[in-house]
Amino acid sequence: MAPHQIGIIGLGKIAQDQHLPVIKANPDFELLAVASQRGLQPDEAKYSFQDYQDLLKIPEVEAVSICTPPQVRHQIARDALLAGKSVLLEKPPAATLSELEDLKELAAKVGKVVFTTWHAQYNKAVEEAKKALAGWTIKRLLVTWKEDVRHWHPGQQWIWQAGGFGVFDPGINALSIVTRIMPEPVFIKTSSLEFPANRDAPIAAHLTFSMSHGQGDLEAIFDWRQTGPQTWDIEVETEAGLSLKLTHGGSCLEIGGRQVVQEEPREYEGIYRRFDELLNTRQSEVDDAPFRLVGDAFMVGKRVQVEAFED
Amino acid sequence: MAPHQIGIIGLGKIAQDQHLPVIKANPDFELLAVASQRGLQPDEAKYSFQDYQDLLKIPEVEAVSICTPPQVRHQIARDALLAGKSVLLEKPPAATLSELEDLKELAAKVGKVVFTTWHAQYNKAVEEAKKALAGWTIKRLLVTWKEDVRHWHPGQQWIWQAGGFGVFDPGINALSIVTRIMPEPVFIKTSSLEFPANRDAPIAAHLTFSMSHGQGDLEAIFDWRQTGPQTWDIEVETEAGLSLKLTHGGSCLEIGGRQVVQEEPREYEGIYRRFDELLNTRQSEVDDAPFRLVGDAFMVGKRVQVEAFED
Repeated sequence: MAPHQIGIIGLGKIAQDQHLPVIKANPDFELLAVASQRGLQPDEAKYSFQDYQDLLKIPEVEAVSICTPPQVRHQIARDALLAGKSVLLEKPPAATLSELEDLKELAAKVGKVVFTTWHAQYNKAVEEAKKALAGWTIKRLLVTWKEDVRHWHPGQQWIWQAGGFGVFDPGINALSIVTRIMPEPVFIKTSSLEFPANRDAPIAAHLTFSMSHGQGDLEAIFDWRQTGPQTWDIEVETEAGLSLKLTHGGSCLEIGGRQVVQEEPREYEGIYRRFDELLNTRQSEVDDAPFRLVGDAFMVGKRVQVEAFED
Repeated sequence: MAPHQIGIIGLGKIAQDQHLPVIKANPDFELLAVASQRGLQPDEAKYSFQDYQDLLKIPEVEAVSICTPPQVRHQIARDALLAGKSVLLEKPPAATLSELEDLKELAAKVGKVVFTTWHAQYNKAVEEAKKALAGWTIKRLLVTWKEDVRHWHPGQQWIWQAGGFGVFDPGINALSIVTRIMPEPVFIKTSSLEFPANRDAPIAAHLTFSMSHGQGDLEAIFDWRQTGPQTWDIEVETEAGLSLKLTHGGSCLEIGGRQVVQEEPREYEGIYRRFDELLNTRQSEVDDAPFRLVGDAFMVGKRVQVEAFED
């Protein structure tokens, strides 16, 4: 099968670090064009535009990966779908849940593929954790997602604006693993959101969850103020005594204290393998569960003001 | 057809003011049982229980109306569906969007009806407004929903808790009219939420919206501090110059300055007519659009602290 001719819209850090090299290394894709407001022109692309509308005019472009900040994704994705292009959406897939619902409906209407990507789900350790937990009753869940925002988001002011998600920008990665591995859905029961006095998005969050069969002891702690060692761990314990721990953002898995998976993350390789399948079979994949949990966490969240944060 | 034997779970203000008399007056329903934690025993019901689980054990009960505060609706609705009962949900249908999604999936699985009710949608004026706007491009939307919380929610502490929705408890009625009458979806662009210093839910909100074809001039103002005349108005103007105004919470409609509908609200009569149809045809009706907009408003909301509020 001829490779999919693809475009990238938005050439920020994630596009440069992941999408460009991963597309280059995957023979099922050919990067035809990019659109960058700043006018970046990577060597890998045949065409470079400042205005994404120009990219959408190229008939050979079958699909686009939208890697802009989430606030503008909905309009770009709509325009792409209406121009007959399939769409891969970086996480989070839109600025709001209503925008994502709209894209889901529009993709079905125009017969094109929309693919919401949650990169943390594409780890072998996550897949193995899902298999290990299938069918069991969960007793305990502890998500600890603590990182240094100064290191990981240097100068990214949009994450601190209202609608920029704050600590849920990394936290949604953890939630996307939780919704993937848990054998039954979790629901947010309480949420405490810490807003720095000078910011419109939370720097830390503490969530507790329930499941339909009862409470359990289920919680998540997100914090963006972690210096020194960074922590991206998910611990799960079943009623029957199985204990499992995902570490390093979901790339390593211990079961019963024994390391069973330890891999360098190759998340975006998995994303583009899946995108190839979806394009070939003309199927959309819209997983809104992680995003919905974030909406819920804000909706039921108790706001706590904490000291101002300067980068 | 024999009347539907029905139960009511939760006998607070809305159940007493609306559900009890409306069911009594509708020959398609027969109130068989109620469950009230406070032990209320209305004359209309054959059986009264404190524990809703006892109500669910009555085989003749075909369906239940869940009128408790939203925080406990999900668990009760799950138990009802699993006991083989269809479910009518007061607004908002659950505490979180994930809970509602779960009920939607469970109802489909067990083959029972779930019905999310948005009472403000059941006004003749709302239906006429929808017809008048169909197919037109909207230029302007102004929602003004200002009421006196002390009058309408005396002593209801749960509305002020985190997850109690605050001013979105009435505001969601306005949003349910907006999603019903607008010829295309609206998306929340900005949201400003005013939290009293001593409360965990907003007392006022200012929302701006976009549509997929562009910005327009679309906004909503919710305020719970209105004394004197109360305002529940929605004004809409189309590009072509049609101007329309719903007043009195959606029960009166002016088009081009002329009053075309003026009716006492008979919202719950409409709700139970619709529930009868859904039960007879075994169809669920889950409209999550108004609830999703509330989640979005919290998620992208800028929090502003205002003076403490005492009832």
